Amino acid sequence: MSVAAEFEAANKQYAAQFTKGDLPLPPGRKVTIVTCMDARIDPARALGLSEGDAHVIRNAGGRASEALRSVVISQQLLGTREIVLIHHTDCGMLTFTDDGLRSKLRTELEENADHVSFLPFANLRQSVVDDVALLQKSGLVLDVPVTGYIYDVKTGTIDKV
Amino acid sequence: MSVAAEFEAANKQYAAQFTKGDLPLPPGRKVTIVTCMDARIDPARALGLSEGDAHVIRNAGGRASEALRSVVISQQLLGTREIVLIHHTDCGMLTFTDDGLRSKLRTELEENADHVSFLPFANLRQSVVDDVALLQKSGLVLDVPVTGYIYDVKTGTIDKV
Repeated sequence: MSVAAEFEAANKQYAAQFTKGDLPLPPGRKVTIVTCMDARIDPARALGLSEGDAHVIRNAGGRASEALRSVVISQQLLGTREIVLIHHTDCGMLTFTDDGLRSKLRTELEENADHVSFLPFANLRQSVVDDVALLQKSGLVLDVPVTGYIYDVKTGTIDKV
Repeated sequence: MSVAAEFEAANKQYAAQFTKGDLPLPPGRKVTIVTCMDARIDPARALGLSEGDAHVIRNAGGRASEALRSVVISQQLLGTREIVLIHHTDCGMLTFTDDGLRSKLRTELEENADHVSFLPFANLRQSVVDDVALLQKSGLVLDVPVTGYIYDVKTGTIDKV
């Protein structure tokens, strides 16, 4: 069975007990979370979110530059006024370089990805500092609180940077 | 209290009962989910995910073009071999145009965002068809199952497109 089919089965159970059908489009807690796609992070459980609370933007690394489009939409059209950015220990972004991944794609897929920046980083703490600063300095982002954290995948804890 | 402080308090409770500290980096179910940042969607609850199961990529609209960098990393470095893409009813991306949002940013923030495509769409079903096709046709994406769904925010149900 494909994982998609497993998701359909699990979703039937979720929908059967669903009681959140009248939530408004704008996030109730007026916050946007930017974090990594990492499978070990469940933002809702780890941060105490219910359906309707927060925008959750996730990409490889939780990189702010890629999240910028979504943050602008979140603030300008849906009224969020706080940003929480969370990177994490043991992140895959610490394990490769643009040159290395491009070389792999050229060799294995015969594709040129020299135009893609895959946004790896070598220093976890600095990646949080850099991404918080990017959001704070962008003219497209409102002057709102931006707080950066590191999530520890061994303990489930967030630590403020 | 800022929402960040509320998240710190909620996270203390989560970490106190945390038992998933030995999960490996690659997703256990070898699947990548691409969906919208919308606050009403909780992918873990709606699809029956546990920590460690799946990469979850989220952006405004759940757009595949922006997710492509993360999908490549997910497949090339972390071994995922299936993609599930989920857009949803009542999406904010149905409510604006690039020209309208750029004009708002120019007027209210005095910023020129003409270089940014905010990726809105006018037809929900077509947006799923388009984004599934984009992933299937990209030379940077492996030839793996890609399944597209629409999540109904009124019922909590996913429907295959």
